[in-house]
Amino acid sequence: MSFELKKHIEEIVSLTEQEFEYINSHFHSKHLKKHQYLIQTDESVKHIYFVISGLLKATYTDVNGKEYIIQFAMENWWISDFQAFYNNVNSITNISCLENVELLSISKENLDKICNESHKMEHFFRVKNSSGYVALQQRILSLLSTSPKERFEQFNQHYPQLGQRVSKTIIASYLGISRETLSRLSAKM
Amino acid sequence: MSFELKKHIEEIVSLTEQEFEYINSHFHSKHLKKHQYLIQTDESVKHIYFVISGLLKATYTDVNGKEYIIQFAMENWWISDFQAFYNNVNSITNISCLENVELLSISKENLDKICNESHKMEHFFRVKNSSGYVALQQRILSLLSTSPKERFEQFNQHYPQLGQRVSKTIIASYLGISRETLSRLSAKM
Repeated sequence: MSFELKKHIEEIVSLTEQEFEYINSHFHSKHLKKHQYLIQTDESVKHIYFVISGLLKATYTDVNGKEYIIQFAMENWWISDFQAFYNNVNSITNISCLENVELLSISKENLDKICNESHKMEHFFRVKNSSGYVALQQRILSLLSTSPKERFEQFNQHYPQLGQRVSKTIIASYLGISRETLSRLSAKM
Repeated sequence: MSFELKKHIEEIVSLTEQEFEYINSHFHSKHLKKHQYLIQTDESVKHIYFVISGLLKATYTDVNGKEYIIQFAMENWWISDFQAFYNNVNSITNISCLENVELLSISKENLDKICNESHKMEHFFRVKNSSGYVALQQRILSLLSTSPKERFEQFNQHYPQLGQRVSKTIIASYLGISRETLSRLSAKM
């Protein structure tokens, strides 16, 4: 029984103890250590993951070997290669642990099952998906229209915790700016 | 009664005639001419829109007056300022018509109502939201990791119709590259 998951779901829908226990029985606990992989490129992806504790990064490596950070995930975030998961194609990302992590996984089959059986859970995931969509749209706007300085400021504003937990090299990659530019900006602040 | 909307919903869930007519009664028809606005910056946003015919663009204008294209929408796409719509804040985008358009609008109240009354519709919008999320994640990856040439090729591959219907200046803005670079790439292809 995960209190973190219960609390997270109940931000959107309320469940009885019995309902939650049934939902919870479709999740499985998974522990990984820092530097371990959760998902590797070119694998099929059968699960999405809810983060109980720890920090992960999802990255993409281009043909020249350059690595780009697509997404972070920490406590109360969901992570997977969603394209691979939803479209039943192989993963194009690597997801690895920046800290020791405790996760709850749910398979596609079980996700569809609990959404089908419980209108409340279907509602929960509709709302989570729309929030995720809005967050990505903001990131696109930021990548298109802001200077490296503004992007770094927005990052610190939105994710004050992350700046403390992640190296500058990784933040620079997430923001699409060079390590040197980030150091210069960081020194000025 | 919109056959386009019925067909679109039935790609994901099947509805009886009666069910669809009830759902359909929560939508309203809206016609706009080329160059007219659907949503302007700093307005509250009470509706999302399904495109029956025509083409629109959602743009963001930065403090220096430079315009960025966030999203296009054509037949069978949904468009709005989703951040404003879902989070009940004012719009940061302008949405305007690149062609005459015919839309179906649904209010937040009615969207929540039909999702609440119909588990099928909740499922439909959960699936639409997850597809939207995956598409935006691909766009982020493309903005971060691809060259202008690759981005233009991907655009032509994913949206062959759009290239015919939209000016080069607008495509360049969507891809985050200069008009001159796009002309050079276009001439080479």
